Amino acid sequence: MNTFGKLFRISIFGESHGEFVGITIDGCPAGLPLTLADFEVDLNRRSSGAKGTTPRKEPDLPGIKSGVFEDYTTGAPLTILFDNINTRSRDYTKLRETPRPGHADFTAMKKYGGFEDYRGGGHFSGRLTLGLVAAGVIAKKLISPVQVTAALQEAGGSTDIEAAIDAAVNKRDSIGGIIGCTVTGVPLGLGEPFFDSVESLISHIIFSIPAIKGVEFGSGFAGSRMWGSEHNDMLVSTEGKTVTNNAGGINGGISNGNDIVFRIAVKPTSSTHLKQHTINLVTGQMVDLEIEGRHDTCIALRVPVVAEAATALVLADLMMQEGIIGRRYKG
Amino acid sequence: MNTFGKLFRISIFGESHGEFVGITIDGCPAGLPLTLADFEVDLNRRSSGAKGTTPRKEPDLPGIKSGVFEDYTTGAPLTILFDNINTRSRDYTKLRETPRPGHADFTAMKKYGGFEDYRGGGHFSGRLTLGLVAAGVIAKKLISPVQVTAALQEAGGSTDIEAAIDAAVNKRDSIGGIIGCTVTGVPLGLGEPFFDSVESLISHIIFSIPAIKGVEFGSGFAGSRMWGSEHNDMLVSTEGKTVTNNAGGINGGISNGNDIVFRIAVKPTSSTHLKQHTINLVTGQMVDLEIEGRHDTCIALRVPVVAEAATALVLADLMMQEGIIGRRYKG
Amino acid sequence: MNTFGKLFRISIFGESHGEFVGITIDGCPAGLPLTLADFEVDLNRRSSGAKGTTPRKEPDLPGIKSGVFEDYTTGAPLTILFDNINTRSRDYTKLRETPRPGHADFTAMKKYGGFEDYRGGGHFSGRLTLGLVAAGVIAKKLISPVQVTAALQEAGGSTDIEAAIDAAVNKRDSIGGIIGCTVTGVPLGLGEPFFDSVESLISHIIFSIPAIKGVEFGSGFAGSRMWGSEHNDMLVSTEGKTVTNNAGGINGGISNGNDIVFRIAVKPTSSTHLKQHTINLVTGQMVDLEIEGRHDTCIALRVPVVAEAATALVLADLMMQEGIIGRRYKG
Amino acid sequence: MNTFGKLFRISIFGESHGEFVGITIDGCPAGLPLTLADFEVDLNRRSSGAKGTTPRKEPDLPGIKSGVFEDYTTGAPLTILFDNINTRSRDYTKLRETPRPGHADFTAMKKYGGFEDYRGGGHFSGRLTLGLVAAGVIAKKLISPVQVTAALQEAGGSTDIEAAIDAAVNKRDSIGGIIGCTVTGVPLGLGEPFFDSVESLISHIIFSIPAIKGVEFGSGFAGSRMWGSEHNDMLVSTEGKTVTNNAGGINGGISNGNDIVFRIAVKPTSSTHLKQHTINLVTGQMVDLEIEGRHDTCIALRVPVVAEAATALVLADLMMQEGIIGRRYKG
Repeated sequence: MNTFGKLFRISIFGESHGEFVGITIDGCPAGLPLTLADFEVDLNRRSSGAKGTTPRKEPDLPGIKSGVFEDYTTGAPLTILFDNINTRSRDYTKLRETPRPGHADFTAMKKYGGFEDYRGGGHFSGRLTLGLVAAGVIAKKLISPVQVTAALQEAGGSTDIEAAIDAAVNKRDSIGGIIGCTVTGVPLGLGEPFFDSVESLISHIIFSIPAIKGVEFGSGFAGSRMWGSEHNDMLVSTEGKTVTNNAGGINGGISNGNDIVFRIAVKPTSSTHLKQHTINLVTGQMVDLEIEGRHDTCIALRVPVVAEAATALVLADLMMQEGIIGRRYKG
Repeated sequence: MNTFGKLFRISIFGESHGEFVGITIDGCPAGLPLTLADFEVDLNRRSSGAKGTTPRKEPDLPGIKSGVFEDYTTGAPLTILFDNINTRSRDYTKLRETPRPGHADFTAMKKYGGFEDYRGGGHFSGRLTLGLVAAGVIAKKLISPVQVTAALQEAGGSTDIEAAIDAAVNKRDSIGGIIGCTVTGVPLGLGEPFFDSVESLISHIIFSIPAIKGVEFGSGFAGSRMWGSEHNDMLVSTEGKTVTNNAGGINGGISNGNDIVFRIAVKPTSSTHLKQHTINLVTGQMVDLEIEGRHDTCIALRVPVVAEAATALVLADLMMQEGIIGRRYKG
Repeated sequence: MNTFGKLFRISIFGESHGEFVGITIDGCPAGLPLTLADFEVDLNRRSSGAKGTTPRKEPDLPGIKSGVFEDYTTGAPLTILFDNINTRSRDYTKLRETPRPGHADFTAMKKYGGFEDYRGGGHFSGRLTLGLVAAGVIAKKLISPVQVTAALQEAGGSTDIEAAIDAAVNKRDSIGGIIGCTVTGVPLGLGEPFFDSVESLISHIIFSIPAIKGVEFGSGFAGSRMWGSEHNDMLVSTEGKTVTNNAGGINGGISNGNDIVFRIAVKPTSSTHLKQHTINLVTGQMVDLEIEGRHDTCIALRVPVVAEAATALVLADLMMQEGIIGRRYKG
Repeated sequence: MNTFGKLFRISIFGESHGEFVGITIDGCPAGLPLTLADFEVDLNRRSSGAKGTTPRKEPDLPGIKSGVFEDYTTGAPLTILFDNINTRSRDYTKLRETPRPGHADFTAMKKYGGFEDYRGGGHFSGRLTLGLVAAGVIAKKLISPVQVTAALQEAGGSTDIEAAIDAAVNKRDSIGGIIGCTVTGVPLGLGEPFFDSVESLISHIIFSIPAIKGVEFGSGFAGSRMWGSEHNDMLVSTEGKTVTNNAGGINGGISNGNDIVFRIAVKPTSSTHLKQHTINLVTGQMVDLEIEGRHDTCIALRVPVVAEAATALVLADLMMQEGIIGRRYKG
């Protein structure tokens, strides 16, 4: 299922070493001003190059190919493409027989009968999140003044994130991290019970981002160890303001007007520079594997902007369903 | 959105103090043998009565009203109803002005403009999960020999669950818990990237169950603190068996043939016997609130069978999409 | 697929000789006043009893079982049931081996492997349209002042409909008819290209009604024989009014502000009192078949109110998507 | 809604005078051999150039941009683009104030608040059907040996189609036509009641094609004038073969194993070389309008291959749902 959303819908496509990766956004209100400059900040945040990220550096310029006319959205489907330029396919072909641990190599091969484009992870590459970030830029403009902010709270179990990355680089290993996400200015009443609770929709799209292993809202797992009297958020205004926010801004699957707060667990990057063991699918023998390609020491560094985008996409859709965002953009 | 699923679809309806709660299942293969006895074990597991659960005790007999003929499913939509018998609406009416902390009282009132059926939580009552459990019974039969097993691993932060509940009862407070869920016999290749990863679908439906605050797969949040070399599961057979299972049985959103493993955080029951504070929405004054209705000390006790059902529903749908379950039941 | 609609969604279920037929409506705005009296006119229009309709006469009282509280919709799923009272199952059992021509007996048996509830057409009975009519009553209230009106324009090829029915009754045969449907007060701009054109959505649901064989909008089939200069509707106001309405009120799949106009072809009732031939599926021999059950001489007589309901359901959904109908009913 | 289909899904995008038009196909089984040569016949059938079609001549070469690797489908989303090369935007800009009768100019402007890309019909251009035809090529390969064949049966009301076009060219006017479509080799049992009848799905997508005003199955509108005894198709084999085919191969919304037969009414091309009248939206005055752009005398000439594609898309989806087409292509 390459599609997500009900009124504000996205369809994703592309492979890491194909011609491009991209996204089509359907249902975007007409009249939203949109230029390439709008994408710059978030695409830069996602891009590699910082310490702890892969040296594969691409300009990642979005090509807006439909749905925008004279710098405004038209109401028609909006397609955004990112050319794949800096690909080195020879790095990956020899891994075909020896699936990389932690990657989708093995499951993709089995699911698609060996026909999958395996180069650089193919359709399973983290590069697919470029389209999500681009769609998120549009969603963020639509939901404004609602604001989504995500940040890495810890890496490799440490809040000194730079030190954690240095340690991992020195060890030639990789680390994961935990991301905190907060949404401010949330209208009361978003969420569509029974099945489209705010938590359901956010977790659905967050778990489609590669490398995510856990999502918790408000008090989350720690909350399951609290007393009820301690966990309940005391309501202190008729608009819904509460003193604490263990609910993470959601009751009964519906936003309660407080900040939506959740945390995301990102596993360590599957690729490391260390020697690993895996099975050779042809010979059936265990073999050593060294992954020579470029890769991130801590992929979690690049996830916050993707998580923001994913969250904004959910909120834009719910706000359209609730009629807060109309079919013509009002600014 | 009261509907979930693509080929195996459920639609849920009803309120706690209405005539019934129920579910309609669409897309169920024809020819599945089905009698009331099939539902007994799981409905008993869900029912109240055990220590730590509400004394509201209803027989909870399912009425199969369509889609079954001479004890076999027909292929037509299957509607199952549960009559609401043991309701005491007077317990709830006086809470109208003073929303109960932790409940959906306030958000439902705001979302639905005060027209919601507020009695006993209305459509937000945990009683709605009866339909889920019933649908889950059918899904479990379809996916067999795949098995879903969930159990409470800790309550109130303790693995001595009975002691934890005793403590909470004595304190007249409530507690939450953590549930572990394991799926065995999972076929390789389930999951539909990009957006319908196995984690996405399971978390979507799990987060629609009341009181859930977190979901983590495999190593989950703890995994974000491991080294990559330590986290990667070493593949040791050509069928996908791995030595460890930090992936929770899923790579790239696709089942890898190992057990699917995940954990669920359940918040403490929102209703407690302790006095709480909340706002009176009419007067705008803070008031004391004592909840007199019947309620569970630890709602997490009743969630495992609901989580199993929810998981089985996802697996049945994915196995139908993959063609493993056909349109005519083969037994 | 027992579900239709995006924001205003219906799920249908039940069989002719089961306990009930029914429908669940999800996404209905909260605060719509609704009582049993609202359903009376349309259910009477659909009911049998008039000349040319089956003598199977049932009270067809709707039971509103959820989603309504103190005579207002709550915003939660709204389930309406119609008990099946006046069933004579013995009429049908002997037809099992000899499929009735024109009916779904044969296709249902093959599709569902013989597990279908075959009594009285089971899930394929025209009785399932009771739920549609009930949902249509609600949709009509929501879209007001937009009005949907359908009427039988000809029966058995004649505009003297009463005479045509008399002739068919005398001949012990059955006839079909053509229904005209007009929607007045249509807002400009409904319809969601590319695939959810107004024509696409209306034809989709109209063709799910039993016995429908054709749908044409505006000039329809006759329009394909006109000159372009003659067919084009001349625009004479800045609000979109045209002199003629060959477009049927729709251009590019989007309502143009004029009346939406379409016609529906209904085949002759498949059951007749005449002797027919069919194959005995057990012996493989051709046999004579006389259908003894009660049936309509001209089922088309009962279709207009169903077509109105179906059309109103589409319009309600599109008007919700366009934000013309909000999430709280404004009256 | 730019998306159609449940398991075999398409998403369409692009504008007539933008960079390209295109389609993304999701859910296509892996392992289907696919090269550019596969598209040649159908794209040529759709292309302009024949008498009665527009002289705008583009090579219309499909660019397969994702989802195919080493000439086989991968199972990932398949994106196909068609560059827009031969565009003359200046032809259209002056029409902005004076909507062309019969076109979507006026409705698009009103729906999208004037932000639509109006050049050459923008997203409403018939050029969007290029993507449908391309997706249809793939669907036809999947459903083989099921065959879909559509042909123009009459133009301008005449079966001498060439003469009818000559007459229209001489008159500088335009004409419509009627297309017959037949599907052979149809498996028994396709169609998903209640709402996804075969007729519902086919009419849904057919009515999304520009210029379609009517769809009738089997006996269609003429059938509404027959006696029931005459209309019923006599079943003469246990596999479902009938002597006549008034049902058009469908009973109860389910394919009965006979050919699926339907007819489509196409209106006359809206653009003609004759002078027309329309309103100037700025001045509110009626004005003369001469359309100078290139256009088809009889757009119906180009619709058959589009109708075939649309039909094949529905059948591929239904055959996947029924498990006749699996997730890995078997040839």
